[in-house]
Amino acid sequence: MKQNLLSSIFRKEILNMSAYKVAEAKNLIKLDAMENPYTWPENIKDQWLSTIRNCPINRYPDPEARQLAATIKKTNSIPGQCEILLGNGSDEIIQLLLMALPSDSNVLAPSPGFVMYQQVALSLGLGYQSISLLPDSFDLDLPAMLDAIKQHQPSVIFLAYPNNPTGNLFNENDIRQIIETTAGLVIVDEAYAPFAEASFIKKLPDYPNLLVMRTVSKLGLAGLRLGFIAGNKKIIEQLNKIRLPYNINSLTQITAEFALNNQDLFEQQTLQICNDRTLVLNQLNQLPGISAYSSAANFILFKTRNNQATTIFEGLKKCGVLIKNLSPQNGLLTDCLRVTIGKPDENKAFIDSLSEIINSLP
Amino acid sequence: MKQNLLSSIFRKEILNMSAYKVAEAKNLIKLDAMENPYTWPENIKDQWLSTIRNCPINRYPDPEARQLAATIKKTNSIPGQCEILLGNGSDEIIQLLLMALPSDSNVLAPSPGFVMYQQVALSLGLGYQSISLLPDSFDLDLPAMLDAIKQHQPSVIFLAYPNNPTGNLFNENDIRQIIETTAGLVIVDEAYAPFAEASFIKKLPDYPNLLVMRTVSKLGLAGLRLGFIAGNKKIIEQLNKIRLPYNINSLTQITAEFALNNQDLFEQQTLQICNDRTLVLNQLNQLPGISAYSSAANFILFKTRNNQATTIFEGLKKCGVLIKNLSPQNGLLTDCLRVTIGKPDENKAFIDSLSEIINSLP
Repeated sequence: MKQNLLSSIFRKEILNMSAYKVAEAKNLIKLDAMENPYTWPENIKDQWLSTIRNCPINRYPDPEARQLAATIKKTNSIPGQCEILLGNGSDEIIQLLLMALPSDSNVLAPSPGFVMYQQVALSLGLGYQSISLLPDSFDLDLPAMLDAIKQHQPSVIFLAYPNNPTGNLFNENDIRQIIETTAGLVIVDEAYAPFAEASFIKKLPDYPNLLVMRTVSKLGLAGLRLGFIAGNKKIIEQLNKIRLPYNINSLTQITAEFALNNQDLFEQQTLQICNDRTLVLNQLNQLPGISAYSSAANFILFKTRNNQATTIFEGLKKCGVLIKNLSPQNGLLTDCLRVTIGKPDENKAFIDSLSEIINSLP
Repeated sequence: MKQNLLSSIFRKEILNMSAYKVAEAKNLIKLDAMENPYTWPENIKDQWLSTIRNCPINRYPDPEARQLAATIKKTNSIPGQCEILLGNGSDEIIQLLLMALPSDSNVLAPSPGFVMYQQVALSLGLGYQSISLLPDSFDLDLPAMLDAIKQHQPSVIFLAYPNNPTGNLFNENDIRQIIETTAGLVIVDEAYAPFAEASFIKKLPDYPNLLVMRTVSKLGLAGLRLGFIAGNKKIIEQLNKIRLPYNINSLTQITAEFALNNQDLFEQQTLQICNDRTLVLNQLNQLPGISAYSSAANFILFKTRNNQATTIFEGLKKCGVLIKNLSPQNGLLTDCLRVTIGKPDENKAFIDSLSEIINSLP
């Protein structure tokens, strides 16, 4: 290969990037990725497979996924004057949104936050500004956010609600003020909505520059990779132009449709996860040196004593439990770990191992 | 909505675009989209569904789709020193490739060609040059291509092999000369490879700037939306950095893996389609005023008498047969229609209706 082939073709931001790495989880209790630990009962699987059997997989999918879109609108109470757009996970929607911006545009989000906002913005060569959350409360630093809006005129602002990896819901009035102040779009990312009793969906008609993004991943369908964004029809119409025409495949359309028509099952699972979250939070806060933060999502962020996070993370892995070590990200996440709520026996294995590890520390 | 909200946020190329439209095909014999008309026998479906039953759909998919990637490399005879990258159809791979280019880059392709090359390039604000094929033969105009390479220094050149919608294989030496002349990447798009006895895959080790793109769509899995691109490891490594980490969902991974392990079935179907292609070509050429072009793909391009294409297209639709009207694209496609090879009874319905319509024309 000629020395300069890569650098003469690809954007320098990409040459300088590293690929997104996913932790190897083989044979580990997987509490690192905010997955729903529950599968479907056999009788539900039977019904699902019989709908898949009739799927004309030799034909292109419905390019507009009309039936699924109608079901999503209904089950998520999307206001009638709004439209939605589907993507392969929220990831594809984030990419689509940012692809639509001129290359000198800016993107703004609080930090710490979901890593893909920055990853996609940088891979497209856009400007990216992150504003630190307030320490301890992890609330928005509203004056700093408003300053950044004034200074950088961001075309898109991402606000995760609840926020990942902190688990909290930002103050509703702060979010409103941001929406009202910016001349750009505000994406309220409600990936964890099933576990929170709060949403901006009802407020969509109030704000033409507000969009709400959701996914079925945390609902127990992470393997499907289906996300959607809801908002003003004129905005969605523009995004639809650059959506790849058959982006949602037939099996995803059929499976998501089937699942959303069996919401009772997910609601039971979600309720169980929320109850177990309370239990795990209390157990964490009883451990010496651990402070766990309340969460409106299906995970809990907790802080260890100084410089113990990585030792604890590695110790848990040796005990067969995989969680997420956020401490290397520094800043507000120094000494922080994140655990996803699993099944009761998985949570117990986590707490027991953690307790043992902490007791063995000097 | 403020008047200028859209125009202050989105790129002007997008505001000026229209969305990709797909023809409504309900209750029609569908010969418009190069789909394989055959489904799977019930016993194969049983085996497939039992693998899907065990899919942990509540977990994120393998981000690298390692098992499927290994099977694709094996079944497509990808040279050992090459790497592949998977996408949701070729479409996502085209988008990924072009997203990686600086915004002042150029993309080159012959015309007529696959519409998504231009659609994606324009939606990203890139330069796009198309060079007309030679009339009648639809061969590459090599001097014009080499001139365009010199003048525009394209970062990416797309060459479909066989070409859509003309169905022919470009001259192999012309393609080699283009690969050897350009300082950019050459993407040989082999979407229709199953129906052609020609491929550039074996030549991948000879050219660091050559990439070969394929899909399982024309093989009978259009509903899956799975494509891949193969080439030099260093190029694929760069593209992998901007690939969304979980872009291939679990059901696609499992289904494609299953299908590729049952290749015999597809080979029978492909053979049948190729035999029927010969039959339809002969039948078309016996109709008065119709000239059909030989094809190395699963469709046939044919020309009608002056200004009859749209009348014939509409007439066929009234008879319940949907094909593709290319005449509105003008240029070399004036008076041209494209028919996909279907099942024998579908092909017969098409030829019978076409014959009737032609006989009824003044």
